[in-house]
Order: sequence, then structure tokens, then C-alpha cells
Amino acid sequence: MKWTAALDVGGTSIKGALISKEGEIGETLSCPTAPERGEKAMLNDMAELVIKMAKGAGIAVKDLCGLGIGLPGCISADGRTLVFANNLHLAHSEVAKLLEKELYIPVFLDNDANCAALAEQRLGGAKDHENALLLTLGTGVGGGIIVGGKLLAGTYSSPGELGHMVIHKGGEPCTCGRFGCLETYASATALIRETRKAMRENNHSLLWEQAKILDEVDGKTVFDAAEKGDKTAQRVLQEYTENLAEGIGNLVNIFRPSVVLIGGGICAAGDALFVPLREAVKPKCYASEVGVKVPEILPAMLGNKAGLIGAAMLCFER
Amino acid sequence: MKWTAALDVGGTSIKGALISKEGEIGETLSCPTAPERGEKAMLNDMAELVIKMAKGAGIAVKDLCGLGIGLPGCISADGRTLVFANNLHLAHSEVAKLLEKELYIPVFLDNDANCAALAEQRLGGAKDHENALLLTLGTGVGGGIIVGGKLLAGTYSSPGELGHMVIHKGGEPCTCGRFGCLETYASATALIRETRKAMRENNHSLLWEQAKILDEVDGKTVFDAAEKGDKTAQRVLQEYTENLAEGIGNLVNIFRPSVVLIGGGICAAGDALFVPLREAVKPKCYASEVGVKVPEILPAMLGNKAGLIGAAMLCFER
Repeated sequence: MKWTAALDVGGTSIKGALISKEGEIGETLSCPTAPERGEKAMLNDMAELVIKMAKGAGIAVKDLCGLGIGLPGCISADGRTLVFANNLHLAHSEVAKLLEKELYIPVFLDNDANCAALAEQRLGGAKDHENALLLTLGTGVGGGIIVGGKLLAGTYSSPGELGHMVIHKGGEPCTCGRFGCLETYASATALIRETRKAMRENNHSLLWEQAKILDEVDGKTVFDAAEKGDKTAQRVLQEYTENLAEGIGNLVNIFRPSVVLIGGGICAAGDALFVPLREAVKPKCYASEVGVKVPEILPAMLGNKAGLIGAAMLCFER
Repeated sequence: MKWTAALDVGGTSIKGALISKEGEIGETLSCPTAPERGEKAMLNDMAELVIKMAKGAGIAVKDLCGLGIGLPGCISADGRTLVFANNLHLAHSEVAKLLEKELYIPVFLDNDANCAALAEQRLGGAKDHENALLLTLGTGVGGGIIVGGKLLAGTYSSPGELGHMVIHKGGEPCTCGRFGCLETYASATALIRETRKAMRENNHSLLWEQAKILDEVDGKTVFDAAEKGDKTAQRVLQEYTENLAEGIGNLVNIFRPSVVLIGGGICAAGDALFVPLREAVKPKCYASEVGVKVPEILPAMLGNKAGLIGAAMLCFER
């Protein structure tokens, strides 16, 4: 049984792949998620993708090791139920049980960021690190925690909602209902919001050369203008970096990992993000001034394949 | 080998006990820490306490299982070195190696709050809980993390500096150099600071009946005045509870434990602390509104013996 099936379910599309234990990617397929169709239609599509990928690879579904699924939400601690996923309009969906009934192979679920962290530990940027954290900076901020080489386990649900750690009590409103969550300062969404705000307040900023209208602003806009020496952009970036560093500093003091990986499109900024970020994190790590080592802060390596690879690892390792 | 020796080293005194695997406490002894005397004198006293306790119990030091020590600071991940302890004026002290040379028994170190968490998991308020957190509210805020029934391990030092998680960026200055750490809002020190501040601003508050002068204020003052209906005291308590809940909410979202234990003198307030605290924590736990269970929030059970018992457990379990 060389192959396992993996699905990475997002709000827009369901991506699928057959993956080997070594992380080799075989047959791939995807389809739109279209969550408005409801649970049954989405689960049917997931089963269908697995069946088609197996067929494409010329093997029987029963000869797959299993099916691993990364989902954007809260998963029960036993990896059986999607407790809640805002983007998918789903709550208490018994995804594993229902798909096992269709496919007759074992099904395992985890949060998508947890899957990505597992993949990075096995085959990516956290290889050879026993204790590692992954933060994914996108629409929100996702998190995955590796301790002793394994995904951290929780009692009532999968843990690692690192984006929903308040760093600024009473600050920006978060979709979770709290105010000042890391997500509201360190997501790509937050960077874009702050870039637009700075543009509205500064008519002469070079930011207006990078994006002619506010709708054109993306996560890259502010990096481009800052590189050209624009003070407004540099200030936005500095505040963004400080907020992200505040969250990372908290997590380092809690976990003392040897590496913190950063995922998401923003990482494309490279040194313009990572050099000042490392500088900002260091003094926030408890006892760093007496020589306690600070973890490496590195870009995640597996990009948007991390979720799929990690979902496959869920099967191989149970 | 029924007994192990345990030491709980604080800024004021070094407490010692012989402890059995079941947590039975035998011979006890203590002495002043007097950290100004330096490393050698403190280590001599630690060795001396162990020798005297063994003698008092009528056994040879070599017949002890080992020596476990809880220390107020940052411990190397291998449990051998005290990397840094502000209160003890020590850095990079090879406590385990030096005491093994004196006593010829294995020596294990950990942070005092980690020891307390281990003890609570084995014999106290977190018994039967696989995933538990302990917060100790005293001069500072200490933390211990139990995952899968074991103390969480870090790479470069013992983890669990839960008090040094910023919840209010740019807020109150912390001894660690950052601003707005949980410790600066949720410690007993913080509660006393805020009580005094409220008294200075409100000459007619009943707080002035509980403490005639500001120097008399302690962690109980505000609870007593609040119980008598004093609005100022109630507001101080509400803010304290909200801040503590913010920190607990963050940690629940990160770890998803089944219990959060609170230690320290403030717990004596009982329901006046715990009832509003539970109310405040619940909505801060991610996905609690769709039914994901919120951990129990309970007082720690072992009081000031927790550190000693946990230090002993370090030996029995290695």
C-alpha cells in the first residue's frame, strides 16, 4: 500500500492528491467547494475525488492506506468530526464516519494548519526539529504546534488556534468575537487593511504608485513601496512586524521551540519581512538577554502543498 | 528505595522534604536562602539539608532515589542547569552537576511552577486530566503545562513562561522588559497595585475600611470590600478578572486542556474569584458558542506543598 489519499478543503476549492509515505505526489484532482450546497454535496464530491484519483492511478480505493483531510476549522480531538468551520457553513459534521461508509478505508481529519505543521516537520522547514511552531499568515492566522516530534493533542478539540490569542486587549474586532487577537494584526488581511488606512491618510505616499486604487492593494503593495524608501509604507511594515513579533514572542515563551516557521503569501517578501522580524522577536523571548537561545524564524518550505502532505501523514502515522 | 529528597528554592527560603512515590511527606527541613551569599553557599545549604533529612529519617543518602529541585527561574531543557533566576542572583549555575558531586545521587531540576503542575497532575486538582494548565498568581504569574499526562518539554529551556505572554501590547511595564505581560495584570502584585490606585482615586471607598493605609493593602482587601458592596472594589475585581480571563482564553485556544488550575493565595477568595472568572473565560474560548467544551477552572489542591511534591516526581519519573 504505497499511496494514501489526501484532501485539503478550503472555502473555495477542494484539492486532492495521492501521496506516498515519502511525500511523493501522484495523481491530483480538485473541484470547487461551493459550501452553499450543504454537507451532503460536499462530502459526495470528496468521495468522488478519491475514487477518481484512485482510478487515474490504476489502483483500487481499498488499496489506499486511507484518507487524510485537512479542514479549515475546529476538529474533535479524536480526529473524527468537523466541529465547526465558518467558511464551509458546517458544524458537527461527522466527516470521517460518513466518508468511511462511502469508501471503506480509514479516514482521519485535522485542522489545515495542523496538517501543514506536520508536513513541515516531516519533510519541510522543521525537519530535524523536535519542537516547532508554524504560523500561516493569510486571510486569518492559522497555527500548528509540534512537540516532541508530534502534533500537540488537545482534550476537547484539536489545539493550536494561535491566531486567536489576544495580544492587544480591547483592540481590533476579530471574527471570533474577541478584540485584539493576533489574527487581527498579523494576517495578510490586517496588513492590507493597515496599508489602505495609511493611503487614505497620506495622499503623497508612494503606496499610491504601487496601487492606483484601494481595491488594488495586496500583501505586496506595502513591501514594494517600503523598498523604494516610502516612510509611510515603512511605518506600516514596522508596526505589522512588531505585532507579529509580539505574538511570536508569546509563543516562544510558552513553548521554547527550536524553530518558528512562517507560511502564507507574505513570506514571498523574504528578507524584507524576516530580517526585521528576527530582530523584533529576540528581545521578547524570556531570558534571551542571559543567553537562552532564541528559535530560528524561517519561511515554511512546502508552500500550498503542505496541507495535502500533512493530511496524508495523518494516515501513515496513526 | 522508598524516599526521594525534594527541595523547593524560593527567594526567601529553601524548603526540603523526603517524599515517597505516593506523595507521602516524611522528614522536612528548611533554611533561609540568603541569595546575596552567592552560589557556593546556597548549594552547600541545599546539600546540607538533604544530608540532615536523610539522617533524621535514619537512612543513608545513597538510599534515596535522587534529589529533585524546583527553582524560580529558567532551567535548561535537560534539567541540569539553572540558566537564570533573578530572585537568586544566579545565572548558568550547574546545580545538578555540582550537587551530584556532593551527594552521589541523581539530581533533577525544573522550574517551580512546572513542578507544581506535575504534582497537581499526579496527586492534586488535575488528577485524571491528560491535558492541564496551572497558573500560579503570586508576586508574578508562573505557569506549568501538562500535555498527554506529561510536563511539556522545550528545546532550549523549560517552557511554560505563561506569565510572560503579552495580552495588552504597550501596557504595564514588566520585569522581563516587555509591556503588557499577563503577569502585570493577573499577579497578586497587580491586584494590590490596582487596589491602591483605586483607593487614591476614591477617598470614600469602603476599601479604606479594609486597609487604613496603602501599605496594609493585600490580595484580600479588594475581595472584602467588594463583598460589602463597594462599587470601586467591584470594578477593580471585574477588571482583574477580565484580564486573567483574557490570558486563560488565549491558553485554552492554544492548548485545549480539560482543566485550568489556579494556584496562589488569591484562590482563598473562592467563589468570589472563580464564579465570575468562569463566566468571563467561556466566551473567549474559540468555538465555545457552537458547543466545543470549555475546560474546568478550579483551584489548585496541593497548596505550597505542590512544588516539593512535583520536584520529587521529577526523580521518580525519569
